[in-house]
Amino acid sequence: MYQNTKAAFIKLKNNKFFELSVICVIIISALEIGAKTYSLSNTAVSITAVLDTFITLFFLFEISLRFITEEHKKNFFKSAWNVFDTLVVVISLIPINDSEMALLARLVRVFRVLRMISVVPELRILINSLIKALPQLGYVVLLMFIIFYIYAAIGSFMFNTINPKLWGDIAISMLTLFRVMTFEDWTDIQYETMEVYPYSWIYYMTFIFFTAFAFLNMVIGIVVNVMEEEHSKEKNKGQPTLGELKQEITELKSLILKLDEKKNL
Amino acid sequence: MYQNTKAAFIKLKNNKFFELSVICVIIISALEIGAKTYSLSNTAVSITAVLDTFITLFFLFEISLRFITEEHKKNFFKSAWNVFDTLVVVISLIPINDSEMALLARLVRVFRVLRMISVVPELRILINSLIKALPQLGYVVLLMFIIFYIYAAIGSFMFNTINPKLWGDIAISMLTLFRVMTFEDWTDIQYETMEVYPYSWIYYMTFIFFTAFAFLNMVIGIVVNVMEEEHSKEKNKGQPTLGELKQEITELKSLILKLDEKKNL
Amino acid sequence: MYQNTKAAFIKLKNNKFFELSVICVIIISALEIGAKTYSLSNTAVSITAVLDTFITLFFLFEISLRFITEEHKKNFFKSAWNVFDTLVVVISLIPINDSEMALLARLVRVFRVLRMISVVPELRILINSLIKALPQLGYVVLLMFIIFYIYAAIGSFMFNTINPKLWGDIAISMLTLFRVMTFEDWTDIQYETMEVYPYSWIYYMTFIFFTAFAFLNMVIGIVVNVMEEEHSKEKNKGQPTLGELKQEITELKSLILKLDEKKNL
Amino acid sequence: MYQNTKAAFIKLKNNKFFELSVICVIIISALEIGAKTYSLSNTAVSITAVLDTFITLFFLFEISLRFITEEHKKNFFKSAWNVFDTLVVVISLIPINDSEMALLARLVRVFRVLRMISVVPELRILINSLIKALPQLGYVVLLMFIIFYIYAAIGSFMFNTINPKLWGDIAISMLTLFRVMTFEDWTDIQYETMEVYPYSWIYYMTFIFFTAFAFLNMVIGIVVNVMEEEHSKEKNKGQPTLGELKQEITELKSLILKLDEKKNL
Repeated sequence: MYQNTKAAFIKLKNNKFFELSVICVIIISALEIGAKTYSLSNTAVSITAVLDTFITLFFLFEISLRFITEEHKKNFFKSAWNVFDTLVVVISLIPINDSEMALLARLVRVFRVLRMISVVPELRILINSLIKALPQLGYVVLLMFIIFYIYAAIGSFMFNTINPKLWGDIAISMLTLFRVMTFEDWTDIQYETMEVYPYSWIYYMTFIFFTAFAFLNMVIGIVVNVMEEEHSKEKNKGQPTLGELKQEITELKSLILKLDEKKNL
Repeated sequence: MYQNTKAAFIKLKNNKFFELSVICVIIISALEIGAKTYSLSNTAVSITAVLDTFITLFFLFEISLRFITEEHKKNFFKSAWNVFDTLVVVISLIPINDSEMALLARLVRVFRVLRMISVVPELRILINSLIKALPQLGYVVLLMFIIFYIYAAIGSFMFNTINPKLWGDIAISMLTLFRVMTFEDWTDIQYETMEVYPYSWIYYMTFIFFTAFAFLNMVIGIVVNVMEEEHSKEKNKGQPTLGELKQEITELKSLILKLDEKKNL
Repeated sequence: MYQNTKAAFIKLKNNKFFELSVICVIIISALEIGAKTYSLSNTAVSITAVLDTFITLFFLFEISLRFITEEHKKNFFKSAWNVFDTLVVVISLIPINDSEMALLARLVRVFRVLRMISVVPELRILINSLIKALPQLGYVVLLMFIIFYIYAAIGSFMFNTINPKLWGDIAISMLTLFRVMTFEDWTDIQYETMEVYPYSWIYYMTFIFFTAFAFLNMVIGIVVNVMEEEHSKEKNKGQPTLGELKQEITELKSLILKLDEKKNL
Repeated sequence: MYQNTKAAFIKLKNNKFFELSVICVIIISALEIGAKTYSLSNTAVSITAVLDTFITLFFLFEISLRFITEEHKKNFFKSAWNVFDTLVVVISLIPINDSEMALLARLVRVFRVLRMISVVPELRILINSLIKALPQLGYVVLLMFIIFYIYAAIGSFMFNTINPKLWGDIAISMLTLFRVMTFEDWTDIQYETMEVYPYSWIYYMTFIFFTAFAFLNMVIGIVVNVMEEEHSKEKNKGQPTLGELKQEITELKSLILKLDEKKNL
């Protein structure tokens, strides 16, 4: 009998209509979260409470379905997306009624919207290609952090007395430098320090050059590369390499040489 | 006699001078729209009224000409550009004399300038290549919308009481986040919330990182790819693929082997 | 005797030291222009006057030298760089002593610095590759202008009464839209119009999307393409195409077939 | 005995644990520099003093180790990274106790953090690829400087009397133009000069077009190219070129022709 139920579950899971209804429930949960940011009437509040319970139960049912229909239970948690889905569902099951924790409960439910990514395959591909670029990006981010750290230390040592709100310690200085990198009112900061150190524009200029220009381009370069690779991989699939062609020609040559030798005998 | 008229129409339609005069009338209609934004003398106002009628009639004549000279009437509306042209002309035919609707009448006439795109082939190619990139861009926009939605929900829950003008509900929050993404006075917003939540810089930092950096690069990557593809397609036209070359070599080999076998007989 | 002078001139023109001294004089003329922006002592002013005469005479001499040593006088003005150099030199020869025209005289001399580009070959290559991208960029700029024009007309019709300083007529509106495109305090403009038209954010959002995002990417795509083409052209120089390879293989096949036929005879 | 010590040193240098401890000490020195930007208790100050001596001695030991274990002492200073490391260590050895020089002493120690780059190979590769792009970027920077210089001279001549704080001399004007290039409150500057010269928007528009658009794209183009080259170099390693393939086919043809000739004899 268990086999029958499982077969029915697999049929349900692969049902196009069921897949669509999962996406619908995610959209409804997103809309519900959005609605909660407006001041609602009492009726609306009680409707969202009912909806909340329904969404939680539906998600619990869907994740259980996927777990039951999985052939090898171990593989289920090998997929990062399954782990993510399970976590989102389990955490939203924890009963939080304390009024102080109400904000936390709401925030947890916001992450349900992220399930949209795990359900739509095209979005998963996008995220995967971003994650693929991460190891290469990792060192760029490290290099950028070192530059930020050095400039923040220098800024903190030199401009500390000028404006402690912007250059108080190394953490605040790094936040100020991030602001400079986004070009957000950076000249106000510059003109302030230039009154004490007239040559401090060199500090800002070199910082902007190092970060905003050189590194943004680097990041672009890496991402473009990753994208191109993906593309060319698909395009060249089924096409032989130049090396394979060369080997074919070499084989031809040896065949002709053999022919030649035989005749000479 | 209908055939004669049609032949004359086709001749007129393909006339270089007529094509140029269409572009001229579009430019005149654009200039007329521009002129209307200045405060005009009474004489000028009456001139624009006459011009308006002339332009409307000319456009009506030109679109009729194109429809009559079309061999298969059904194909005419298969081209999106023809549908667009017809719509623009038909809508500007609707008589709007009500003073309250005057603004609407003016706005409708503004879209006549868009006919410039449907008339100049190079602009049509540009728009077509943009539209080709849309399906790929679509999912990036969806992913971006999900990120915006989640951050707007969190921002609305947490910062609502700090500044309702910026974080009042999820719609206002999304507008505020778009402002943050364009780096427009985003530090003012940040400093305001940091007074209540000192660690709220994490919220802005991660948001900027996710949207402005990662996604802008993604968009660039996709557009560059589309452009490259277009380019390489033209360049490789007429050139054989590596796979075709390999097949040629394999045929050669079998020919030589046949030669070899015959000799052995 | 004329031949002797010409030979001596050609020798001087190709002299490495002379080439360097031309660059030096251009740098000196640039420094002189820079110096004039500071308030100078009387001695310094008279020195710059002498320098000015010297630079003018030197440039006149150098351009004459290049004209005399040119084999075919007609070809001299076929090079856009020669025309540019001659223009800069000739214009700075016009005596302007009128105090009111002093500013104009100064401005004309500023363009002497541009001669740096015509003298250093690497800079000329950069400018040439930019000019090569122009025909492709031209249509993007035209498309962008159409979008600007349409949005400026709409903005001028709708927001004219809200802030005539920003939306007074179509020209002012285009300037305001350029400001919006650079994200410079664009939210201030938006919040102002949103008080009257609460949905005017759609106007700004779509405008920013069309221009800043789509088109900037387009421009990047084109420039990247032009750069790549230049690069790949150099790389593939001397390398056969796949088409040539295929022809070689076809010739091989016919040779073997001929061999086969002979044997059968 | 010296040989034994050297062998022991080489063993220590290549020890994985020693390599990790070098990275650890660099991180500790970075944290110490960061800690100094906060106001510390007396105990903490004395701890940092001890730490400082330890770090200096450790770095001195490590650089000596690398120098001793180098086979050819001359090659040691051929590596730019070794020279950089030695400089950083030697400069931080100079005793600076004067209170006025305390700031300088701190700044020198900040550069120790840069040793992170010379120790982690992946970061060194990133820096090397940036340096490789420099010669190509050099001329773009020169071209940009010429444009800045010309516009700064014009701006200084024309707008000097409007706002000497922004257009006082050519140096201040260049700083102002850099601000315009980053779009930082550039419209305020523009509106100010437009009150005197209503057409001065042409000055800003062309400047922004030349620098921000054309040149940023150029820089992107170059960096993308360098990155791609690096990538394709690795990908095509071991693959024959089309030219080599053609040569192979030509050799084949001559072999068959020889075969043909023999038969005819």
